Amino acid sequence: MTARPRIKDVAELAGVAPSTVSVILNDVPGARVNTATRERVQAAARELGYLPNGLARGLRTRRSGTLALVSDVIASTPYAGQLIQGAQEAAWEAGYLLMLVDTGGDEVLERSAIRALRQQQVAGVLYATMFHRLVEVPDLLAGLPVVLLDARSSREDVPAVVPDEEAGARTAVGTLADHGHRRIGFVLDRNDGPAAAGRLAGYRAELAARGLAWDETLVVRAASTSDGGQEAVGTLLDMPEPPTAVFAFNDEMAVGAYHAAEDRGLRVPEDLSVVGFDDLYVLAREMRPGLTTVALPHRAMGAAAARSLLQLVTDPTAAVPSLQLIACPLVRRGSVAAAPHRR
Amino acid sequence: MTARPRIKDVAELAGVAPSTVSVILNDVPGARVNTATRERVQAAARELGYLPNGLARGLRTRRSGTLALVSDVIASTPYAGQLIQGAQEAAWEAGYLLMLVDTGGDEVLERSAIRALRQQQVAGVLYATMFHRLVEVPDLLAGLPVVLLDARSSREDVPAVVPDEEAGARTAVGTLADHGHRRIGFVLDRNDGPAAAGRLAGYRAELAARGLAWDETLVVRAASTSDGGQEAVGTLLDMPEPPTAVFAFNDEMAVGAYHAAEDRGLRVPEDLSVVGFDDLYVLAREMRPGLTTVALPHRAMGAAAARSLLQLVTDPTAAVPSLQLIACPLVRRGSVAAAPHRR
Repeated sequence: MTARPRIKDVAELAGVAPSTVSVILNDVPGARVNTATRERVQAAARELGYLPNGLARGLRTRRSGTLALVSDVIASTPYAGQLIQGAQEAAWEAGYLLMLVDTGGDEVLERSAIRALRQQQVAGVLYATMFHRLVEVPDLLAGLPVVLLDARSSREDVPAVVPDEEAGARTAVGTLADHGHRRIGFVLDRNDGPAAAGRLAGYRAELAARGLAWDETLVVRAASTSDGGQEAVGTLLDMPEPPTAVFAFNDEMAVGAYHAAEDRGLRVPEDLSVVGFDDLYVLAREMRPGLTTVALPHRAMGAAAARSLLQLVTDPTAAVPSLQLIACPLVRRGSVAAAPHRR
Repeated sequence: MTARPRIKDVAELAGVAPSTVSVILNDVPGARVNTATRERVQAAARELGYLPNGLARGLRTRRSGTLALVSDVIASTPYAGQLIQGAQEAAWEAGYLLMLVDTGGDEVLERSAIRALRQQQVAGVLYATMFHRLVEVPDLLAGLPVVLLDARSSREDVPAVVPDEEAGARTAVGTLADHGHRRIGFVLDRNDGPAAAGRLAGYRAELAARGLAWDETLVVRAASTSDGGQEAVGTLLDMPEPPTAVFAFNDEMAVGAYHAAEDRGLRVPEDLSVVGFDDLYVLAREMRPGLTTVALPHRAMGAAAARSLLQLVTDPTAAVPSLQLIACPLVRRGSVAAAPHRR
């Protein structure tokens, strides 16, 4: 992930306080800064490619526009941050403030929140779920520009931005095939939804593209937790002809794959290669070996959705894509090795 | 952590859709629901102790009050969710909507955001940082009720809600002492701040309370990452008389302790007991053995701060505590065992 440079990065490089950077780059009227400092900060900003945000520039002269991000549940998912950050940066660059409201999935509360946002003349709404799923767009949003974020609805007139689950799964299975694996297990969530359906479709499609046979005994459903993954991968490893690699529906199930291997005296990746999905904050990176996984592109999704929304806010008839599938990149760490028979 | 029951929990227990629960428990006018379903949902709500939120009730009849949570950086920390959830639940119960604005630590943007919130007649502001630190309260907030959340300022007139870092560290060291450990290392962040200072004070205080000698060679500073923890704990383990237990400044450093032990053929907890701090989402739970750690009470802090703010919104002269230290509970998992010489 390449992070957009932040004010503190400029401050560090220039050796000044963030407040100084802010004052200089935003041309705060009346601020006195010596020339050498100003030049050092400007040079650091250029070197890092830092852009002062449009919101700050815009708000000095006029009342701000406001966008809202209405979501079911921010709490208890570690993903929210990146979604919000992506949306926020796009909003700020266009001079809009982003207000977040979390409804806890309570429909009555959601209606109340939307009414309050409309009273406050919000220019548009990102309607987000914290896991890719199908939603009904609330009627109360009628007439307001709306973009769905990590969610889809049956209404084709509401643009949606979601992860490209199928392509992400193809990437995962593809990297295992590239390493010579021919028997690749897939452990996935018991519950169906766009994520499970898309990842399963990708698994099938990539097997077919590689000339590998579909074998339904290699697909095991369980709870999408580490315990579920451990149980499901255990089932696979206890088969007469076990797979040499496992693609896990999410990183927690992938952790379960590590445990199932360890329980049987097998090593990851030497005896069992594992690829996860999500790039779950801290966990995937801190596993030993680090977990190779397909990242959910939360920041890119947030930014794409906010940009579509801003287009609609400016021109309600703008031709924004009705569906944007955002690519899920492979994050290579240490859990994939060549298939045993190839070494 | 005991989660407050949510509408979906009631729906699951009653075997109906969440929307049905919402309609029934919020007495939505004109909704038709059969009596058996209504009774089943009401019984499930009673059984779980679910309370419909005040926001929804209040908003049907009058314009909502709005509180704002202004924070430096929500993104990239997995903590934000619980802080927000705690604050939000307290706000909702009182009939207030909570709007979140993340400023990315940019002071000019923060000023713009505060101006926008004031234009929208926000009733009060929670001013939050995502790591416990010292802040200046922006002048633009003057005259508005403000409570600091996970932050403190030099101004004593602004109430603050922060974790009780010192007592949390005493709990960590205390549980190690209870298990017979006499040589307890402490690895901590190179950077000083309220968290590092408080946890170090707690470490010293608990050693003293247990009659254990202060030994500065047992305290090692490093980067507060797993690599930093691995290096710092490695230093401790390579001492002529290494500690039998380590208290780590945070869970990532604790992960490094596991790695340092593994690198030397030592087992956690048999050869080295480890206690972390933070209860970092997923990671602490998914370690093998599970990491015993001191939890940051984000949800309780969010709720306490919102309740103080609501008191001030109702009565600006209300006597709310100027400082609330929220207890950090020990989460026992599998990384602490009796000291080797005791077995």
